Amino acid sequence: MQRTVYFISDSTGITAETIGNSILAQFEGMHFDKHRLPFIDNVHKAENAALRIKTHYARTGEKPIVVNTMADRALCDIVASSGALMLDVFAPFIGPLEEELGAKRSGAVNRSHGLVDFDKYEARINATNYALAHDDGIDVDYSQADLILVGVSRSGKTPTCLYMALHYGVCAANYPLTDEDLEKLELPARLRPWKDRLYGLTIDAARLAQIREQRRPGSRYATLKQCRWELEQADRLMRQANLPCLNTTHVSIEEIASKIFDRFGIERTMF
Amino acid sequence: MQRTVYFISDSTGITAETIGNSILAQFEGMHFDKHRLPFIDNVHKAENAALRIKTHYARTGEKPIVVNTMADRALCDIVASSGALMLDVFAPFIGPLEEELGAKRSGAVNRSHGLVDFDKYEARINATNYALAHDDGIDVDYSQADLILVGVSRSGKTPTCLYMALHYGVCAANYPLTDEDLEKLELPARLRPWKDRLYGLTIDAARLAQIREQRRPGSRYATLKQCRWELEQADRLMRQANLPCLNTTHVSIEEIASKIFDRFGIERTMF
Repeated sequence: MQRTVYFISDSTGITAETIGNSILAQFEGMHFDKHRLPFIDNVHKAENAALRIKTHYARTGEKPIVVNTMADRALCDIVASSGALMLDVFAPFIGPLEEELGAKRSGAVNRSHGLVDFDKYEARINATNYALAHDDGIDVDYSQADLILVGVSRSGKTPTCLYMALHYGVCAANYPLTDEDLEKLELPARLRPWKDRLYGLTIDAARLAQIREQRRPGSRYATLKQCRWELEQADRLMRQANLPCLNTTHVSIEEIASKIFDRFGIERTMF
Repeated sequence: MQRTVYFISDSTGITAETIGNSILAQFEGMHFDKHRLPFIDNVHKAENAALRIKTHYARTGEKPIVVNTMADRALCDIVASSGALMLDVFAPFIGPLEEELGAKRSGAVNRSHGLVDFDKYEARINATNYALAHDDGIDVDYSQADLILVGVSRSGKTPTCLYMALHYGVCAANYPLTDEDLEKLELPARLRPWKDRLYGLTIDAARLAQIREQRRPGSRYATLKQCRWELEQADRLMRQANLPCLNTTHVSIEEIASKIFDRFGIERTMF
């Protein structure tokens, strides 16, 4: 069974999409055809959106679902005239909050992903530059690192570091364990001074072989045998060094980041 | 006036934090002290969270606010016993959706940022690798690019490309306009075959000088004069080539990405 869902916002639509996806994920076995309609901030655009939704409804006979974060009631009413099921993300919470805070919400368009605070922007850009400069053991001066991810090649270190930088302004470096490190079975000398900031990533051997095969088809690097050996040695090394460690095989980047922050007690909020 | 807010989740807490930030941003002039409590998925952790919130309430006398995405009612009740104002993110929407879809929500813990679909994971990792390989004109084979950002150094190209890759699996390359390009005032030959995929980023000169000064203090590169010249030439070049263009000075990375997708009609949903 399939339903069409529209994420509608007067700004980027990220909030509508994030909560919408979370709610829809709770209905297993349903398929949702999702569309984002951002920057719906005037009557003309709202009317176009309503027309599009209404046309789809008329064609399919299935009531579309709208996840809405527009602040302006008039625009909401226009979209609602399409006949869709309207899920208004903010409506249920504004009343209780106004009462508790003794303050009225400001009528402004929702700009939580639009406003730019230069200091915060700089924190995320600087952290992103840090992650790029300290990726894959390029620059091994770790004195500014909030944390350092350790693992074999393609265990998920780089995307995790970039995600933590872009979203939390966390300076995360990563160090790929080399064959030499893995043979010696000891923490590389350059990592030892920063033992408290190290976190290990591992992954199932079959999955690693699959990822590496995509990258370098037919290489020794991508064989199951090589992947197994590297992962077993890495596992030993991390246990000996007593590093916290996470298997990333079935874990999203977001969840890896959250678990690492949780372990280090990093409570920085998102941008 | 300050209030303490807890984002509580049985998973990463990203949904709670995203919608929580969006709601709180509508109360201008208030200061919120925000804390993330992720992975609250058993009675013990819920009791600890409740104790922490209750203790804070008793100490300050200000009712704390909880933005909650836990699915398990028993855990919600434990946290609610802290006396906080509970804003349950999913509760208002599940009923209407169950009725419309004729299906019950699954009781499972909220895993919208935890589930891993290997194909989707690969799309975001491949796009991230693409962005890294095609950053700053390193690899100029743009045949696989969904889009190519063009602009002077430090106009916001790299973080935008990484964001679009990590969140939408969009393959975005970026090309920094060199002094030579800017003197010639014509689109570099390597960009010409891909004119339909080009998008220009610009920025205010004073802001660019500030960003560059941070990166290379005292350099000619960071002078207001040099920034002005580059931006004026880039502006001319983009207008002559008829490129769509966005000034990034007051715009967040999320909003830049949304506007670009909107322009190119890219409707890919987030991960």
